[in-house]
Amino acid sequence: MVNIPTIKLNSGYDMPQVGFGLWKVDNAIAADTVYNAIKTGYRLFDGAADYGNEVEVGKGVARAIQDGLVKREELFLVSKLWNTDHKAEHVEKMARKQLADLGIDYFDLYFIHFPVALEHVDPSVRYPPGWFYDGVSEIRRSDATIQETWTAMEGLVEKGLARSIGISNFQGQLIYDLLRHAKIVPATLQVEHHPYLVQPNLIRLAKNEGITVTAYSSFGPTSFDEFDFPHAKALTPLLKHDVITEIANKHGKAPSQVLLRWATQRGLAVIPKTSRQEILVQNLDCTSFDLSDEDLAKISGLDINTRFNAPTNYFTTEKLWIFA
Amino acid sequence: MVNIPTIKLNSGYDMPQVGFGLWKVDNAIAADTVYNAIKTGYRLFDGAADYGNEVEVGKGVARAIQDGLVKREELFLVSKLWNTDHKAEHVEKMARKQLADLGIDYFDLYFIHFPVALEHVDPSVRYPPGWFYDGVSEIRRSDATIQETWTAMEGLVEKGLARSIGISNFQGQLIYDLLRHAKIVPATLQVEHHPYLVQPNLIRLAKNEGITVTAYSSFGPTSFDEFDFPHAKALTPLLKHDVITEIANKHGKAPSQVLLRWATQRGLAVIPKTSRQEILVQNLDCTSFDLSDEDLAKISGLDINTRFNAPTNYFTTEKLWIFA
Repeated sequence: MVNIPTIKLNSGYDMPQVGFGLWKVDNAIAADTVYNAIKTGYRLFDGAADYGNEVEVGKGVARAIQDGLVKREELFLVSKLWNTDHKAEHVEKMARKQLADLGIDYFDLYFIHFPVALEHVDPSVRYPPGWFYDGVSEIRRSDATIQETWTAMEGLVEKGLARSIGISNFQGQLIYDLLRHAKIVPATLQVEHHPYLVQPNLIRLAKNEGITVTAYSSFGPTSFDEFDFPHAKALTPLLKHDVITEIANKHGKAPSQVLLRWATQRGLAVIPKTSRQEILVQNLDCTSFDLSDEDLAKISGLDINTRFNAPTNYFTTEKLWIFA
Repeated sequence: MVNIPTIKLNSGYDMPQVGFGLWKVDNAIAADTVYNAIKTGYRLFDGAADYGNEVEVGKGVARAIQDGLVKREELFLVSKLWNTDHKAEHVEKMARKQLADLGIDYFDLYFIHFPVALEHVDPSVRYPPGWFYDGVSEIRRSDATIQETWTAMEGLVEKGLARSIGISNFQGQLIYDLLRHAKIVPATLQVEHHPYLVQPNLIRLAKNEGITVTAYSSFGPTSFDEFDFPHAKALTPLLKHDVITEIANKHGKAPSQVLLRWATQRGLAVIPKTSRQEILVQNLDCTSFDLSDEDLAKISGLDINTRFNAPTNYFTTEKLWIFA
């Protein structure tokens, strides 16, 4: 079994540096996918209410525990609070619903998914509710501040529902403002991070504040193929980029492993997803070699500060320029 | 006298679209500079506690009013709350001090200067206090949230000390969060803005939220010559850039006027500074011609998303990566 390095969080817990990302894992295969990933050695699973597959993920986890592959305390189960649940009255309610869906009684790490407060949609109306109040096109913002939401997130830790709490898709200034009132400093910042979007200042900020960083969409545009983003399609896929393939060849590794190692060697955690067993093993094994400082710098040199996972890329809205 | 267009603020007041920026105006010449600018036709003066020249600026204003050049109500006087005064208890106290320094009884527009809360420094210790608690190198942050500060800013409007209030150097996510609790929507967002830092999404966000935008450092790197920033010196000065000079020649205007028109024609206000009478007149006259859509697009095409006015450019600190 591969030995996965861990990262010490400011909450005192250890987080596996390599995990499995559950975004876009179809419900039909989610349970088997999780079970098989556990069997392959994965311990961290990065989910979210919004991914719509928590019941199935929970089934995979339960089966693996039942079969003796792993104990709950050996797993590191991560989820995220959706935008429509930012009001204090909804945070605990929805966290408990997600825990019930997953069939567990605590999150190892629970994130604010986006710094965007939308009007609540009751799960009986639609679940997961997505971005639109009417399910079609209407964005309805709520008046929940980040302080209100974070204070409620801190309540989850006090009640033992989450061991660590974090923030996802936050900019620097909002992190600074949160730190003014936070009783619990976020354990982790999870952001889009790949050689086309390096965000060195944001990573430096997080490090300086004792916040670890998890990179999502480590392979860049490839993670967004199904959305046909023109600015993604116009770019050379990172997995086929000369800089990456040359370094991969030199080390006798896959380009995907080089991309993951570039992140992990710089102290970040990664949460790649795959449906292929060979890649599943490769991804988990991405910390078994080291890139040179020159390799790292070359890869970072590909930065063009281009983001794919912004709401304004998925749909037309004047209400969600959140990365401005 | 030049006719200066105005911009309607969400507070109901009209703001001149072209004003005079008081940053780096030496105290020795500040009174005469302001007096002369008023004589030349300027009505908006953009100052700040941090510029350290409000007493002198006030003298220039008073002399101009005394000499019958202008009435107070024809002027639009702008200032900014410094970082060390973000706690509720300091906001009104410092606003009143600045009003007293200026010799006026209300601001037309009063900004939060930076979204950075630093520990208070009493004016008797040092004024303006600058970034460092000890005046030398120590950054000491305070626990004032933006909500605390903005609520206190709203109090200034209720008390008639400020007609409009705004935010400066804010990122999109912090603006969204402020809008969740704000009783008064900021009238204006003031940010660094020039063809090397266009920030189209931020400007679009502000517009969509009914917040006008004032551009500072319209001439780009030239505004920072005295700081010897390597990344500023490495760039072609915008005033000498082929794209700008060609458009200027075509219109028979100065490159500086083209840069200001590029901003004003896109709906922004500008606050250039100069110590030369010829340029003073030219700058004020920058709305008397129109650029073509092609000109505007060409200038916007120079964008390299490069910022000069970030604390981390002025001094080494791990505590102020506020533009991450």
